[in-house]
Amino acid sequence: MTSSTLPPESRRSSAPQPRASWVQERADLDRTTLRPRRDRLGHEPPPASPPGTLVIDDTRRPKIFVIDYDAEVVSEKEIERVDECIPYLTDDRPSITWVDVRGLGHKATFERLGEIFRVHPLALEDMVNVPQRPKADVYGGEHILIIARMAQVHERCVLRTEQLAILVGRTFVLTVQEEADWDVMEVVRERIRAGRGKIRERGADYLAYALLDAVVDGFFPVLERLGEHIEDLEIEVLDAKRRMSKPIHDLKRDLLTLRRAIWPQRDLVNALLREDNPLISKDTRLYLRDTYDHAVQLMDMVETYRELSSGLMDLHLSGISNRMNEIMKVLTIISTIFLPVTAIAGIYGMNFHHESSPFNMPELDWYYGYPFVWGLMLASVVGLLTYYRRKGWLRKDKDDDGA
Amino acid sequence: MTSSTLPPESRRSSAPQPRASWVQERADLDRTTLRPRRDRLGHEPPPASPPGTLVIDDTRRPKIFVIDYDAEVVSEKEIERVDECIPYLTDDRPSITWVDVRGLGHKATFERLGEIFRVHPLALEDMVNVPQRPKADVYGGEHILIIARMAQVHERCVLRTEQLAILVGRTFVLTVQEEADWDVMEVVRERIRAGRGKIRERGADYLAYALLDAVVDGFFPVLERLGEHIEDLEIEVLDAKRRMSKPIHDLKRDLLTLRRAIWPQRDLVNALLREDNPLISKDTRLYLRDTYDHAVQLMDMVETYRELSSGLMDLHLSGISNRMNEIMKVLTIISTIFLPVTAIAGIYGMNFHHESSPFNMPELDWYYGYPFVWGLMLASVVGLLTYYRRKGWLRKDKDDDGA
Amino acid sequence: MTSSTLPPESRRSSAPQPRASWVQERADLDRTTLRPRRDRLGHEPPPASPPGTLVIDDTRRPKIFVIDYDAEVVSEKEIERVDECIPYLTDDRPSITWVDVRGLGHKATFERLGEIFRVHPLALEDMVNVPQRPKADVYGGEHILIIARMAQVHERCVLRTEQLAILVGRTFVLTVQEEADWDVMEVVRERIRAGRGKIRERGADYLAYALLDAVVDGFFPVLERLGEHIEDLEIEVLDAKRRMSKPIHDLKRDLLTLRRAIWPQRDLVNALLREDNPLISKDTRLYLRDTYDHAVQLMDMVETYRELSSGLMDLHLSGISNRMNEIMKVLTIISTIFLPVTAIAGIYGMNFHHESSPFNMPELDWYYGYPFVWGLMLASVVGLLTYYRRKGWLRKDKDDDGA
Amino acid sequence: MTSSTLPPESRRSSAPQPRASWVQERADLDRTTLRPRRDRLGHEPPPASPPGTLVIDDTRRPKIFVIDYDAEVVSEKEIERVDECIPYLTDDRPSITWVDVRGLGHKATFERLGEIFRVHPLALEDMVNVPQRPKADVYGGEHILIIARMAQVHERCVLRTEQLAILVGRTFVLTVQEEADWDVMEVVRERIRAGRGKIRERGADYLAYALLDAVVDGFFPVLERLGEHIEDLEIEVLDAKRRMSKPIHDLKRDLLTLRRAIWPQRDLVNALLREDNPLISKDTRLYLRDTYDHAVQLMDMVETYRELSSGLMDLHLSGISNRMNEIMKVLTIISTIFLPVTAIAGIYGMNFHHESSPFNMPELDWYYGYPFVWGLMLASVVGLLTYYRRKGWLRKDKDDDGA
Amino acid sequence: MTSSTLPPESRRSSAPQPRASWVQERADLDRTTLRPRRDRLGHEPPPASPPGTLVIDDTRRPKIFVIDYDAEVVSEKEIERVDECIPYLTDDRPSITWVDVRGLGHKATFERLGEIFRVHPLALEDMVNVPQRPKADVYGGEHILIIARMAQVHERCVLRTEQLAILVGRTFVLTVQEEADWDVMEVVRERIRAGRGKIRERGADYLAYALLDAVVDGFFPVLERLGEHIEDLEIEVLDAKRRMSKPIHDLKRDLLTLRRAIWPQRDLVNALLREDNPLISKDTRLYLRDTYDHAVQLMDMVETYRELSSGLMDLHLSGISNRMNEIMKVLTIISTIFLPVTAIAGIYGMNFHHESSPFNMPELDWYYGYPFVWGLMLASVVGLLTYYRRKGWLRKDKDDDGA
Repeated sequence: MTSSTLPPESRRSSAPQPRASWVQERADLDRTTLRPRRDRLGHEPPPASPPGTLVIDDTRRPKIFVIDYDAEVVSEKEIERVDECIPYLTDDRPSITWVDVRGLGHKATFERLGEIFRVHPLALEDMVNVPQRPKADVYGGEHILIIARMAQVHERCVLRTEQLAILVGRTFVLTVQEEADWDVMEVVRERIRAGRGKIRERGADYLAYALLDAVVDGFFPVLERLGEHIEDLEIEVLDAKRRMSKPIHDLKRDLLTLRRAIWPQRDLVNALLREDNPLISKDTRLYLRDTYDHAVQLMDMVETYRELSSGLMDLHLSGISNRMNEIMKVLTIISTIFLPVTAIAGIYGMNFHHESSPFNMPELDWYYGYPFVWGLMLASVVGLLTYYRRKGWLRKDKDDDGA
Repeated sequence: MTSSTLPPESRRSSAPQPRASWVQERADLDRTTLRPRRDRLGHEPPPASPPGTLVIDDTRRPKIFVIDYDAEVVSEKEIERVDECIPYLTDDRPSITWVDVRGLGHKATFERLGEIFRVHPLALEDMVNVPQRPKADVYGGEHILIIARMAQVHERCVLRTEQLAILVGRTFVLTVQEEADWDVMEVVRERIRAGRGKIRERGADYLAYALLDAVVDGFFPVLERLGEHIEDLEIEVLDAKRRMSKPIHDLKRDLLTLRRAIWPQRDLVNALLREDNPLISKDTRLYLRDTYDHAVQLMDMVETYRELSSGLMDLHLSGISNRMNEIMKVLTIISTIFLPVTAIAGIYGMNFHHESSPFNMPELDWYYGYPFVWGLMLASVVGLLTYYRRKGWLRKDKDDDGA
Repeated sequence: MTSSTLPPESRRSSAPQPRASWVQERADLDRTTLRPRRDRLGHEPPPASPPGTLVIDDTRRPKIFVIDYDAEVVSEKEIERVDECIPYLTDDRPSITWVDVRGLGHKATFERLGEIFRVHPLALEDMVNVPQRPKADVYGGEHILIIARMAQVHERCVLRTEQLAILVGRTFVLTVQEEADWDVMEVVRERIRAGRGKIRERGADYLAYALLDAVVDGFFPVLERLGEHIEDLEIEVLDAKRRMSKPIHDLKRDLLTLRRAIWPQRDLVNALLREDNPLISKDTRLYLRDTYDHAVQLMDMVETYRELSSGLMDLHLSGISNRMNEIMKVLTIISTIFLPVTAIAGIYGMNFHHESSPFNMPELDWYYGYPFVWGLMLASVVGLLTYYRRKGWLRKDKDDDGA
Repeated sequence: MTSSTLPPESRRSSAPQPRASWVQERADLDRTTLRPRRDRLGHEPPPASPPGTLVIDDTRRPKIFVIDYDAEVVSEKEIERVDECIPYLTDDRPSITWVDVRGLGHKATFERLGEIFRVHPLALEDMVNVPQRPKADVYGGEHILIIARMAQVHERCVLRTEQLAILVGRTFVLTVQEEADWDVMEVVRERIRAGRGKIRERGADYLAYALLDAVVDGFFPVLERLGEHIEDLEIEVLDAKRRMSKPIHDLKRDLLTLRRAIWPQRDLVNALLREDNPLISKDTRLYLRDTYDHAVQLMDMVETYRELSSGLMDLHLSGISNRMNEIMKVLTIISTIFLPVTAIAGIYGMNFHHESSPFNMPELDWYYGYPFVWGLMLASVVGLLTYYRRKGWLRKDKDDDGA
Repeated sequence: MTSSTLPPESRRSSAPQPRASWVQERADLDRTTLRPRRDRLGHEPPPASPPGTLVIDDTRRPKIFVIDYDAEVVSEKEIERVDECIPYLTDDRPSITWVDVRGLGHKATFERLGEIFRVHPLALEDMVNVPQRPKADVYGGEHILIIARMAQVHERCVLRTEQLAILVGRTFVLTVQEEADWDVMEVVRERIRAGRGKIRERGADYLAYALLDAVVDGFFPVLERLGEHIEDLEIEVLDAKRRMSKPIHDLKRDLLTLRRAIWPQRDLVNALLREDNPLISKDTRLYLRDTYDHAVQLMDMVETYRELSSGLMDLHLSGISNRMNEIMKVLTIISTIFLPVTAIAGIYGMNFHHESSPFNMPELDWYYGYPFVWGLMLASVVGLLTYYRRKGWLRKDKDDDGA
C-alpha cells in the first residue's frame, strides 16, 4: 500500500531537457545577464570559521520531506517542523526513514536536525557549509556522512551543480540538498513508490547506495550533452562562421567543474568499497562496485572530452591562420593584377618632350603603341597569375571553400 | 570429427581490408553522411536506471551460435530459441560449450539466458547495457565476467569498436556481442574446428583466454593502419596540398577511442593474472601473461602515436606560417618591383610648366631623359632585389618548392 | 574572566580588503616601483650555512605576545624581554601558554627562546631561517615543529606570503612569524578571548590545530580574489582593450607561489594525521581531518585556476590573431577599392598621340568616355566587394565588434 | 688457449661511425628512397595468431655461431646445422656455451633449437616473433628469457633498432638476433677471447649480464649522436637557413623509438634485480645494479632530449614569426618610401586647366614649384623613416642579421 | 690546535660572483667561442666498457689533500704520492681522515687508492668515470659510495656542474672531484679548521653529511642567480628590444641540467635516511633529514622556474604577434592615407579630350575644381582615420609604447 501526501507538482522531474543549440543559448545568456558565470562557478568556500560553526542564511526556510517505507507500506509527507519526523524514527516498525531536506537556510532547523539525529558537529558543518569536496567520512561507527555533488544541464544550457549530503544511519537516511528546486533523485523516489527492484526490501545502506548511484548516473546525460556540444563546436570551428575561442574556453571551464565533481566521488565510492564498515552490508558493496565502475567511466569521458577540447583550440587557431593566409593571398593577387598595370600606365603617362630628343618616348607615336601597352599589361598579369597557379594558390583557394 | 551446420557465408571474416587512402575515404564519407562521427563515437551510456534493469531494443532478435567441443568432437550450430542450448550444457560428456550471442535486442532472450546460466543480475546488466568500461569481475566464485572491446578498421576507413562480454563458467563460455555483423573471433573458431593447438584439449578458461587474446591481438592491425595513416599524413602535411587540421583532429579522436578501449583491457588482464581464482588454471595464467604483454605493447603504440599526432599538428601549424611567409615575400617582391617604377613614372608625369621656370622639370627636355628614367627604374628594382637576395629570401623561395 | 593588556590598535585584522580592480592596481604598482616582484617572490633561501646557525638580522627586535588561558581565565600581554614568559610556563596552573613572536631579528632573543623552550638546534634554525618548505617534524617525542605559510592579498592587490613556525609542546605553543605587521590568526585569538567553541577547554594540540586551520582557511579568501581576478581577465581578454600577456603571466606566477605554499601544507597535515604521535590527541586528529579536506580543496582550486589561466593565454593569443585578421581585411579592402581605380585612371592618363594612329587611345575622344571609365571603376570595386561579402569577410567584421 | 675458426671479416664491429652531418644525410636519404621511415619504424607486430605459432620467413637461413669457454679454453665456431651445437652442451666439461643465432628465418631451425634447449613454446614464440616489448620472463625455474632491443646509428645517420632474445640456462646462453648484419655484442666476444676481466671464470648468468650491459651501454653512443644532432639543429634553427620542422619532427620520432626501447629495459633489469631467482647469483646481481643505473641514466638523457626538442620547435616557430615581422617591415618601409612620392606626383600630374581658374593648380607655374615638390616628397619619406627609427624598427632589422 | 700546510691561494672560494648581466655575458660568450655549450653539457657517458675498467686520462695528475682531525687537533697537507696518506689512516689516534682527490687523471694513482681503501671495483669505476647519475650505494656493509653533483655559476655567467664522489668508511672519507679548480666544500674545510659546530667531535658519517649538505646548499645561490635571470628576461621580453628566444631556450637547458642533478640527489639523501645502515648514526640521520628538506625545496624551485620559463616563451611569442599587429597597422594607415590620394589624383590626371564631349571631365574647368579635389582627398583620408580611431587602432598604438 502506498500513500502519498505530495501534490503532483512537487514531484520534481530529472528528465533531460529537449536539446537546443548550446552555443546560441549561452551566447544569448551571456548578453542578457552581465556576469552569469560568477554565480554558476561561485562555489567558493566561506572564509575561515571555527569548527562546528554553521554558516546559514537565516531567511529561507528549507522544505523537508519524509519517506518512510518497508517492504509493504510507503508513506510520503512534506513536514513543516523538524520534530514531525521523530515519530517515523522512533516507531516500532523496522521501517527505513528517508528525511530529505531541500535548501539550506534557517539555522534553528539544522541545529534541531543535528540533535534529533545526533550528528557530530563536524559532520553537521560539512552538510551545511557549501561547497565541500565530495568525500565519505565515518563518525563514531554509527554514521557515515557522504558528501556528493549532483550535476544538471539546466534550461538555457547552463551547467549547474549542487551539493548533496547523505547521512546514513542504521534505519534512516538524512539528505541535505544545497538548492530546493532540483535534484536527480526522483528516480529513486519512483522506485520506492512503485516497489520496483529490491529497494523496499533492503536497509538504509541500500537506499544510500541507490541515491549515490542516481547522483553518479546523473552525470551521464550531462556529459552526453557536452559530447554533442563538442561535436557542434567541431563543425562550427571548421565552418569558421563565428568567434569560437569563448565557447571553447567555456567548455573547458565546464569540464573542469565536472572533473572537480566526479574525481573525488570516484574516490569516495572506492573508500566505501574498501573500508570494512558494519553499516554497509556485503551485498550493498557488490552494487557499489557497479557505481564505482560508472564513476571511472565518467572520468574517462571527462578526460577524453578535455583532450578533444584542447584539440578544438588547435583547430580554431589553425583555422584563424588559414583565413589569414587566404586574405593575404587575395591581397597579393589584387596587387599583382593592378600594380603592374599602374606602373606601365604611369610610364606612358610621363610627359617627356618627344620634340627634344628622338629617344623621348617614341612609343607614343607608334602605330600600335596603345595596343602594345595593353598587351604588355595583360602579359605581366597573366604571367604572374600563371606563376601563382603553379604554386597552387589559386586551386587551394577553391578547395578552402569546398572543404 | 567436425560437424558444422553453418552455411559458409555465415563464417565471418576478420581479414584486413585492402588499404585505401584513409584520408580520402574519410573525406568522402564526411561529405555524404551528415554526422557520421556521432554514431561512431556515440557509445555514451544510458541515463540512470535501477540496477539489474536491462535496456534492450526489443525489435531486433539476436543470432545465437553454439559450438560444443571436446578433444575428439566438434559440433557447431545456429539455434533459434535460447532453450536449444540447454542440452549442450547438461549432457554427460565433459565437453566445453561456447554460446555466442550476436547482437543485442529481444529482452526475453536475455532474461532467459540469465536464468539458464544463472547469471547475477548486475552481471547480466553489464553484458547487455553498452558501453561498459572493459573490466573483469568475479561473481560468487562461480562466474567470471569479462567485458572487452573489439576494434576494427571498417570499410571506408572508419574505426569501429564493439563491446564483447565473456562470461566464463566451469564448462561453458557465454559471449555476447554488441553488433551482429562483425567480430574478431573467427581465428578462434577456426582453431576449434581444425583442432589446431591445444584449444580442444583444455577447459573453458583456455577458451576465454583465446578469445581475449584474439580481441587484444585484433588491435594490432588497427594500429598498423593508423601508423600508415600517420605516415601518409606526415607526407601530406609537408606537401601542404590540403587542409590538414581536420584529419589530424580525427586521428587524435580515434587514438583517444583506442586508448579508452586498450587501457582498461590491460588492467583486466592484469587483474585476471593476479587474482587467485580457481576458475583460471595456473597453465592458462601463463598464456594470459602473454596477452598482458601484448596489451602493454598496444598501449606503448597508442601513446607513441598520440605524441606523433601532436607533432603533426605542430608540423601543420609551422607549415601554415611558412606559407604565409612565402606569400608575404611574393607580395613584397611584387610591390618592390612596381612601386618604385610607378613613383618615378609619376614624377615625370607631373605637369609643371617648364616655360614658367627653368627649374620646372628640365629633365623632360634632356636628350637622354627617357632612357635615364628607365635606367633609374631598373636600378631601383635591381638594387632592392639584390638586397633581398642577400637576405636569402629569393634562395629560400626555391628551397621551399624543392623540399 | 578575560584580561587583555593589549591596546586596541595592536589587534590585527585579517578582514578581506574591499575589492578594487586587481589589474589596474597592479599596473599602477608596477609603474611606480621599479622591481616590485623581486621583493614579493624573493623568498629564496640563504646560501649554505652550518646546521644550527641562525641567520638573523640583528637590528629589528621582534614583538612578543603571550596569551595564557585555561577554561576559566585568559590573560594576554605584550612582553619586552623573553624571560618574562617563563612564569607563564612554570606556574602550577595547567594552563596553555601561547607565546607569539612577531618578526625575525635580534639573535639573542631567539637564542634565549631556544634555551627556555629547549628547542632542538635544527628546529630553531628552521623556525628562524626563512623560507622553509612547509612541513611537520617531531623532535625527541617532546616537540612538534610545524612550518606553515600564511597568505594574504595585501593592499594594492599584491599577494603576500609569510612563514609561520608553530612549535607544539605539552602545555605551550610557540609561534614565530616572519613579519610583524600581519597574520591570519586573529580569529583564533578572538575565540580564545571570547571563550567560543571548545578551544579554552582543550590542550595545546587543539590550539595548534586551530592555528593551522586558520592558516589553511586563510587561503580561501586569497583564492576567491584570484578567482574574481581570473573572471575580470576573461572579460578584458575578450574586450581586447589592453595588452594582457603581462597580467596573465603575473597571475600564473601568483598561482605557482600559492601551489608551492599549499601543496606541502596538505602533506604536513596528512603527516600529523597518520603518525601515531602522543602529543596529538585522537580527538584533535578528527578536527585535523577537516583541515586536511580544506587543504585538498585548496589544491583543487589552485589546479583549476592554473588550467583556466592557461586557457586565458590561448584566448589572448587567438584574440591577437583575430585582430591581425581584421587589420589585414581592412588593408585588403582599401587596396581593393583604390588600386583598380588608380590603375584604370593611370591607363587613361597615358599620353599616346592619337594623331599618330587611330588605335592610340580612341576612348579619350568618345562622347561617353569619361562616364564609361567611372563605370568601369565602380564595376571593378563593386565586383570585388561582392566577392568579399560572399566570403563573409564584411559580415564577420561587424560580428567582431558586436561580440 | 683460444681457438677461433672465424674468418676475421666475420667479426662485426660496433665502433661508432665518423660523424657526418646528420640532417644533410637524412635529407638525401629521404629524397632517394620513397618511404624510408616505414621500414625503420615498421616494427609493428603481426596480426593475431595462436600462441606458440612461429611466424618465420622460411627463405633466409640464420647464421649460427657457438662460443664455448671455461677459464682455460675458448673455442669459437660457425656451425651449419643446429644439431652441431649439441656436443658443446652435453660434454663433460663444466664449460659455458653461448649459441648465437643471427637472423630470423628457416622455421625448422628454430623448432629444432626449441627441442634441443627445451624452450617453452611461448618463450620460443617471443624469441622469434618481432617486435616484442623488452621484458624478462622466468619459465619453469629453469630458463630466463630476456627480450632486449639493441640500437645503432647506422650509416647515413639512420637510427636502427634490433631485437635480441637472450635465453639463460644453467650452463648455456642462447641469443637470437633479429638481423644478421650487426649487433653490439662484439665487445663481449672480445673479452671472452682475450680472457679480460672475470667473464671466463663466471657462469652463464654473468655472460647474460655482460650481454645485457653491452646492449644498454650501446645506447650511449646513439644518444651522444642525437645530442650532437640537437646542438646542430639549434644552430641551424637560429640561422634559419632551411625548413627545420621536418628534421625536428624526425628527431622526436627517433627519441620516441629510443624511449620505447629503453624504458622497458630499465624495468626488466630491475625485475632481474628484485626477483629471487636461483639462476642469477648474488654477485651478478651487484653488477646488474650497475646496468640498472646506466638504464636510468639513459632514460634521463632521453627525457632531457625530448624536452630540448620541444624547445627547438618553439625556437623554430618563433623564428618563423620573427622572419615574418622582418618581411612585413621591409614591405612597410618600401611602401612608405614610394607611396607618398606616387601620391604627390599624382597630384601634380592632374590636368586641371589653369586658364579656367586661378585656383587650378597655380603651383605648376611657380618658379620653384618642381624643387618644392621634390622637397615635399623627401620630407614625407624622411619623416616616416624617422618615426620608424624611433620605434626601433630600423635598428632591430640590423640586430636580426647580426644575431 | 690547527696546523695548515696549505698556501693561502690554494684555499678555494665558493663565494658568489658579483652579479653581471647574465644575458649580455652569455651572448658575448656565444659569439667568441664557437660551440661553448658542447663542453658545458657534454657530460655524456663513455661508450660500453667492461665493468671495473677505469677510463682515465693519464696525462693530468690529480692533486691530493689530506685533512686529519679529531676534537683537539687538525692537520692539513697536500701530498704528492698516494701512499703518503696511509699513516693518517693507520695511526692509533681515533681521528677522522678526509682524503680529497681533485681532478681525474693518472690511472695508477686511482688504482693505488682503490687498493689502500679496499674499494670495490664497481665503486671505483663509478668514482672515476664521469658522469654518473647521483646515487648512494652500499658496498659490503663497510663502505657507502655517494655520487653527488656540485653546481656553480661560473664567471661569465656559465652554469657549471662537477661530479663529486664521496666514499664513507668508519674513520675516513675519500672524496674524488671531477675537476681540480673549484668545489663548494670550502665552507666545510673552514668549519673543520675553526672547530665551529660539532663537526670536530663527530665521526666520518657526520663529515659525509656536512659535505653532502654543502653540495645541496650550493645549489641555492645558483638558483637565486637563475631567479634573477628570469626576472631580467621578463623585463627584456616586455621591452622587446632583442631576440629573446635563444636566451629563453638556454635558460630551459640550464634548468634541465639542474633538474637532472638535483632530483637524484634528493633520492639519494632519502635512501640514506631510510636504509638501516650501521655506518650512519641516528643522530646524523636527523641532520640528513634537514638536507633532504633542502633538496625538496630546490626541486620546488626548479619546477617553479621551469613553469615560469615556459610562460616567458608564451610572453615572447605574444610579443612578436603584437609587434606584427603594430607593423600591419602602420602599413594599413599609410596605405589609407596615400592610396585614396593617388587614386583621386590619377582620375584627374586622365587625358580625356574635353573638346570631344561635354561629359569628358568638366571638373577640370570648374572654378573651384582643384580645391574641390583637395577636399575630396582630405575627406577620404580623414574619414578612414576616424573609422580607425573608433576601432581603437590609433589609441592602442600609443598604449603599446607606454606599456
